[in-house]
Amino acid sequence: MQHYFMNQTLTTGQTIQLPTNISHHLGKVLRAEVGDHIELVSLEHQVFEAEVNKLDGSEVDATILKSTQKNVELPLAVTIVSGLSKGNKPEWIVQKATELGVSQVIFLPMNWSVVKWNQKASKKIARLNEVALSAAEQSHRNKVPNVTYLDGLKSLTELNFDTKLVAYEESAKDGEETQLVKAVKRTSAGQSIVAVFGPEGGISEAEIALLKDNGFVLAGLAPRIMRTETAPLYFLSAVSVLTELI
Amino acid sequence: MQHYFMNQTLTTGQTIQLPTNISHHLGKVLRAEVGDHIELVSLEHQVFEAEVNKLDGSEVDATILKSTQKNVELPLAVTIVSGLSKGNKPEWIVQKATELGVSQVIFLPMNWSVVKWNQKASKKIARLNEVALSAAEQSHRNKVPNVTYLDGLKSLTELNFDTKLVAYEESAKDGEETQLVKAVKRTSAGQSIVAVFGPEGGISEAEIALLKDNGFVLAGLAPRIMRTETAPLYFLSAVSVLTELI
Repeated sequence: MQHYFMNQTLTTGQTIQLPTNISHHLGKVLRAEVGDHIELVSLEHQVFEAEVNKLDGSEVDATILKSTQKNVELPLAVTIVSGLSKGNKPEWIVQKATELGVSQVIFLPMNWSVVKWNQKASKKIARLNEVALSAAEQSHRNKVPNVTYLDGLKSLTELNFDTKLVAYEESAKDGEETQLVKAVKRTSAGQSIVAVFGPEGGISEAEIALLKDNGFVLAGLAPRIMRTETAPLYFLSAVSVLTELI
Repeated sequence: MQHYFMNQTLTTGQTIQLPTNISHHLGKVLRAEVGDHIELVSLEHQVFEAEVNKLDGSEVDATILKSTQKNVELPLAVTIVSGLSKGNKPEWIVQKATELGVSQVIFLPMNWSVVKWNQKASKKIARLNEVALSAAEQSHRNKVPNVTYLDGLKSLTELNFDTKLVAYEESAKDGEETQLVKAVKRTSAGQSIVAVFGPEGGISEAEIALLKDNGFVLAGLAPRIMRTETAPLYFLSAVSVLTELI
């Protein structure tokens, strides 16, 4: 079933005209028919099942049948902070992180980032939010992750999170594995957890010092060295396993 | 430190001439110098630290200093079976799965695979094994995963594994989450576990029936729907969390 995010409150029994982009996708791209069922997510993140009841030119109407009661969100609000990386890695990170339940992705330049975004940042961020929306639709999320850009780690340290980690390669090599588990375990349902991942070149000592001074805990992930675009996915999967499976 | 796989037994104190491709990489690409330290992995999967002691034209010699005692391999031998998918997803899967500790990746056509490899299979598999080698070097693995092609699921059912799973989207939607955890928990260190992942279009009912008849257990992964190239990474991360972190 197609899954779309609606920026409005929905009520069972209500018939609504779908927004232009959704109407176009259903009517023209998918060639939906009257009677087809779709999922619509309300402003309050509830997933409703609806039935297409009118296809008139570019206008598509749907009737809300029932709330599905589905909640596929992680119990914790997870923020991934990614030091700017090359090529299309940011798109890949946002897409996969969305499938894995991320709440927020923050991109920021770090000391060893080879790339800089500068004036391109707002255009890139707009594109990345489209990637997040598309991935959230396909993963049938209740929420669309937010993708933002900060000008550096200092700005990050001004934000509040209940638990703060930095994925540090050195720690992983030293066999340090349990900070990740401890951090997830001490974060209660509904609380927020942030993890910082360096760019291809890694994280500098000055950046580690700044993060430690601001309450970030160094956490090895697994014994193996993972690339800048893989490590966040391991982390999100770990949060899922530790909070949803066991 | 650079990390290379040697197809020979290594002994502390021994001085060896490195194979041509490794000599070239060290000597010409990295411009290594006498005294530089590198990691060499023996045929028996032991990681040794070695020192470059000669750079003569295209010949590079190294002296084995000591065994590092490093073992970054997952406790279980994990095989990922991936229904043929589009574009460069196979390369991504092999690269990321290698970073995440996979032992073996098997590609095979499935009912709803949009792509077929046929005569191109051997060339693709050769390329994918290069991707695995490169990723294993970067992740400092003790072993290089093997990438192979089978002509179909029937051939897969003739192979032996201690634990057999199929990642089935239907199960995930029905809230079924614990088969994954049970399966990993009942697989002892050193044993093998295989998980089948369908292509973009999913797995057909006939394929599910064939797998179930051959001892494969249907396992939902997490509440969210993941793409064909993401689900194997979640699974490998879950195996890591369940066997290495807790």
